[in-house]
Amino acid sequence: MTRKYSIILGNLGNTRDRFCAAYKDNPASPEMLRLAAGIPHVSGIELVGTWDIRPDNVRQMRQSLVDSGLDCVSIIPDLFTNRQFSKGSFCNTNVQVRRQAISYTKQMCDIAGELNCETINLWPGQDGYDYLLCADYERETAWICEAICEIASAYPGIRFALEYKPKEPRTHSYLARMADSLLMAGQTGLENVGITIDTGHAFIGGEVVGEAIVLAKRAGNRLFHMHFNDNHATTDDDMIVGTVHTITYLETLYWLDRCGYTGWLSMDQYPYREDAVGAIGESILWLTRFSAILDQCRADIDRLVEQQDPVETSRFLRSVLISGQTLSPEIIAESISA
Amino acid sequence: MTRKYSIILGNLGNTRDRFCAAYKDNPASPEMLRLAAGIPHVSGIELVGTWDIRPDNVRQMRQSLVDSGLDCVSIIPDLFTNRQFSKGSFCNTNVQVRRQAISYTKQMCDIAGELNCETINLWPGQDGYDYLLCADYERETAWICEAICEIASAYPGIRFALEYKPKEPRTHSYLARMADSLLMAGQTGLENVGITIDTGHAFIGGEVVGEAIVLAKRAGNRLFHMHFNDNHATTDDDMIVGTVHTITYLETLYWLDRCGYTGWLSMDQYPYREDAVGAIGESILWLTRFSAILDQCRADIDRLVEQQDPVETSRFLRSVLISGQTLSPEIIAESISA
Amino acid sequence: MTRKYSIILGNLGNTRDRFCAAYKDNPASPEMLRLAAGIPHVSGIELVGTWDIRPDNVRQMRQSLVDSGLDCVSIIPDLFTNRQFSKGSFCNTNVQVRRQAISYTKQMCDIAGELNCETINLWPGQDGYDYLLCADYERETAWICEAICEIASAYPGIRFALEYKPKEPRTHSYLARMADSLLMAGQTGLENVGITIDTGHAFIGGEVVGEAIVLAKRAGNRLFHMHFNDNHATTDDDMIVGTVHTITYLETLYWLDRCGYTGWLSMDQYPYREDAVGAIGESILWLTRFSAILDQCRADIDRLVEQQDPVETSRFLRSVLISGQTLSPEIIAESISA
Amino acid sequence: MTRKYSIILGNLGNTRDRFCAAYKDNPASPEMLRLAAGIPHVSGIELVGTWDIRPDNVRQMRQSLVDSGLDCVSIIPDLFTNRQFSKGSFCNTNVQVRRQAISYTKQMCDIAGELNCETINLWPGQDGYDYLLCADYERETAWICEAICEIASAYPGIRFALEYKPKEPRTHSYLARMADSLLMAGQTGLENVGITIDTGHAFIGGEVVGEAIVLAKRAGNRLFHMHFNDNHATTDDDMIVGTVHTITYLETLYWLDRCGYTGWLSMDQYPYREDAVGAIGESILWLTRFSAILDQCRADIDRLVEQQDPVETSRFLRSVLISGQTLSPEIIAESISA
Repeated sequence: MTRKYSIILGNLGNTRDRFCAAYKDNPASPEMLRLAAGIPHVSGIELVGTWDIRPDNVRQMRQSLVDSGLDCVSIIPDLFTNRQFSKGSFCNTNVQVRRQAISYTKQMCDIAGELNCETINLWPGQDGYDYLLCADYERETAWICEAICEIASAYPGIRFALEYKPKEPRTHSYLARMADSLLMAGQTGLENVGITIDTGHAFIGGEVVGEAIVLAKRAGNRLFHMHFNDNHATTDDDMIVGTVHTITYLETLYWLDRCGYTGWLSMDQYPYREDAVGAIGESILWLTRFSAILDQCRADIDRLVEQQDPVETSRFLRSVLISGQTLSPEIIAESISA
Repeated sequence: MTRKYSIILGNLGNTRDRFCAAYKDNPASPEMLRLAAGIPHVSGIELVGTWDIRPDNVRQMRQSLVDSGLDCVSIIPDLFTNRQFSKGSFCNTNVQVRRQAISYTKQMCDIAGELNCETINLWPGQDGYDYLLCADYERETAWICEAICEIASAYPGIRFALEYKPKEPRTHSYLARMADSLLMAGQTGLENVGITIDTGHAFIGGEVVGEAIVLAKRAGNRLFHMHFNDNHATTDDDMIVGTVHTITYLETLYWLDRCGYTGWLSMDQYPYREDAVGAIGESILWLTRFSAILDQCRADIDRLVEQQDPVETSRFLRSVLISGQTLSPEIIAESISA
Repeated sequence: MTRKYSIILGNLGNTRDRFCAAYKDNPASPEMLRLAAGIPHVSGIELVGTWDIRPDNVRQMRQSLVDSGLDCVSIIPDLFTNRQFSKGSFCNTNVQVRRQAISYTKQMCDIAGELNCETINLWPGQDGYDYLLCADYERETAWICEAICEIASAYPGIRFALEYKPKEPRTHSYLARMADSLLMAGQTGLENVGITIDTGHAFIGGEVVGEAIVLAKRAGNRLFHMHFNDNHATTDDDMIVGTVHTITYLETLYWLDRCGYTGWLSMDQYPYREDAVGAIGESILWLTRFSAILDQCRADIDRLVEQQDPVETSRFLRSVLISGQTLSPEIIAESISA
Repeated sequence: MTRKYSIILGNLGNTRDRFCAAYKDNPASPEMLRLAAGIPHVSGIELVGTWDIRPDNVRQMRQSLVDSGLDCVSIIPDLFTNRQFSKGSFCNTNVQVRRQAISYTKQMCDIAGELNCETINLWPGQDGYDYLLCADYERETAWICEAICEIASAYPGIRFALEYKPKEPRTHSYLARMADSLLMAGQTGLENVGITIDTGHAFIGGEVVGEAIVLAKRAGNRLFHMHFNDNHATTDDDMIVGTVHTITYLETLYWLDRCGYTGWLSMDQYPYREDAVGAIGESILWLTRFSAILDQCRADIDRLVEQQDPVETSRFLRSVLISGQTLSPEIIAESISA
């Protein structure tokens, strides 16, 4: 199975949390592009609107992408760092703010067209609520649906991938998990609205990613994009893939394949204190290894998921992890040399 | 707003966990019925299949219900205590077990007809999985969907309320939260398939009940039934309403009304160590109080959810909780006398 | 029971998260002091080192405090926003950084002396770890212990209150919960090292605050300070007291009194999107109400905690919440007028 | 590093949860002993009081142990399945129940003496509380401390290992995590009171096991016993080691060695639906593999925990997991043949 790996450009840059304004200095965008292109297996990048890409630098970015040999995998409109959207973008109670969120997103769609970018990754992070009895869930979810409809109708050639996340920056997001996002996508009635899974968001939401992938398939092949990272399952720690959880990634790749996913595997991390290039590169290398296991053992896994015997599955996993005995020497050699 | 309160009959009976086989002795069903009828405000009961109701005692139960003046609010087929279903009922890999789960549920539908019971509360608790790479999510969710279709098609006069729960007895349930259950209900294509919210299951799943109610409305008025209890938000503790969380119940009732819910408010508790009649009765009394607040302050709450100002909402909540100043003397008097 | 209420000065100021650099504009310190003094019941403030208080402005701050009539309740050395401490302050692997953390904290102790401030609230937020197999827990906890020893030995007249928090900014903090912090305090062998409970940190850590208070008492009256806020129990949301949880605050005040706590009740919130003065003021007003209930019903609660009957406790709570019937008209009148 | 593996005998037997009374039939004790002895690497067992061992069958059990060649690793007094202890054993408000809990535990100590068993594994599972304002934390923790003191003083030759667990069967346990259990152990003032870590209990409690091991060492080498299993981090699922988490077990073994732990590694699982012998055997085989990695790479890990570079740690983990390249052919061969 050939896989396409990408990263979010900004992951190489500045890091901030609510305490420390900058854990590192931020390389300029050209430098980040150069770094991205040097990470093994990376052939695409995602750009955050306004930060990385604006009407004024589209031409320049297009050239930079050509120069670096990287595809623009998606554009992520910045609906989350602008104070204007602090109480909501698509579902802000102020109609002018809602209009602004829509027109800004359309601007990003225009840019996507110019960059031959097929996907808008929509993460309306401020569209949620914090306190009980402080939100009109009915009105606000309707507004989100209307906004997505308006935008996605206007750009039928672009795929809109709704990225869900249970919480942060709001204590509760409207697009919180796969299933509610699929309901929202379905309510738009548009074929070009689908979902982005961020593995860490899924973990926080109590989801098993493999099952989420199947939900998206059952709802009409709605899985449009994948973000990868790891965490300790309660907060969006955005860590290196494989450093907390292991087996779930193997299962995730298995179900991506079984459900016919041919999109990008994009890394989305926040290496606050780590070397960003190294941390992102590690995630990809873990995934290439899981992918190698899967390529060689797919029939075994087919059998195991059908068989439902945890003892057998454990035995298999022990054999491919640790001892490596099931893997052919060629696979191992390739893994090591990477 | 007139509300209809009910309880699950078995909540008055035996309690067991994986350590202690019986924290209490189990009253016989007639005694439980008598106790239920004596709890203030209770006018309906839910019966668990096999345990409370079987083909052999339908006639007798019908008479008992008449005698006690209680409606049969729902029947809950027992798909969870039978060892036969331990690896799944509707999605068991063994086709004969699947057929057995379906035929047993149909038997319960027949009984529902004889008891003028409109609702089958479907909780397929064993339909889930425990380990990674040990379940074929695609095949198994399809089986669940087919089973529900077959049953609900055969009984168009009965409403099938899918009760979701994130975990227990399996580490992961297929019907885990409101949104995935709505997807499943939608995939049946049947109007008589909807959802039961158990407030405690929602808490465990990270849901705000008010938002879940709105999701069900947006999906086509799919909220069919309500179970109430409280918990510490990580395990299905099945505690007295209002003893851990407070404000969320007021919000829940508000959204039930706004979304036009006219069904039963049913208590679903597990009073392992407490007096069952007292514990269940307390839950209802909390709800009657929240209901009284709501009746008197509905316009205020309408304004607050629109206004999105947590300071104002807090001020309002302080005024109706604790000091009771907003409530009329009549409301307070009625609350106290209950 | 007379209670002393205070706030953390910076809570009135700027708010930032990892997405939005500033949800609001930051009032200058004098303006924040003026605002703090105007919040009902507030008679003290906590100052964050460097941000609010430095050697160069001690004299001026002392005068400002006199002018505003506010006590300096504690100083919180800033061991968390400085990039120098991003991989740890007291347990940084670089000895020079450790020395810098210690000398900076001592500087804050000197300032505390000049402001007649009895308490240093120590929150070494960066002292923890993120990844498995990336920390030497043994060496690092020893360094933290040594640092606290050195500082607290040098300032026997100051009380050092260790503020624990399970996570954030690190995925795991060394001072995570009450019990591990008490172990650390005990290992210093110093009487002037104790603990700060932040109610929200306790919720995240799975603690019941009342039990944590008892742990501190059993370890030798080690509860030195209290921070109040509320959250949805998984993230440090720093919300208005009483807006998610209710009853736990009544229990908390009860146990504070039973364990002889006479310190400050300090609000620690992050009103990202709310009016800060209003949000903090609300928390205090909730606490004054719970306090009024407690003053009037202490004997009832004494009986209830002894009796261990959740039905009786529920009945009592219903009577004091909502209907307010147990409270005297004077108490109610006073609550309303506040 | 030579390790000693054991299992809890009852794990091979009956399984029950609050829904299903018996997922399997229960083999008789002699049959379970025979099965245990046949699991590779197992050389010891733990016996649950009353269930497995009573005054009337001590002689017979001693002979059975000799015959099977198994050591009695610990006795676990049954303070959790007896309805008498449903509202607490050592901290029951009824003094006669408290006395009964103590005398019963002493009876188990006598039996331990007859079986040359050095350790009593104390899990007072019912000693906790469920509801707020329904427990006198001060009085009850004092009673637990007194009970442990009385028992442990009377049997200075036995080691009492307090097994902590955050919840279940109560919503909150008094012995909830490592640190509070160490405080309790310390308050007894007795050297023969220490702690049992159950890895799954630690996960639920938000602990990193490696750090918990260090806490126990710092408190005076108080780690007496280890129980192993895995779970999805919110409930005590008692699953096969290594099927959810992977890397944390390697880290756990590393810290056990660094802190000088020479005790048993005992499996504590609940194979509700799996083959018990297979499920428990798998856990041990995962641990033998992690142990083999550790034996060969200890110096690398020493360096990594000192170095604090997650990228380097990730690189190392990739090399020993999956590709197996770091392991010598002999180690791999031995792993495979197991």
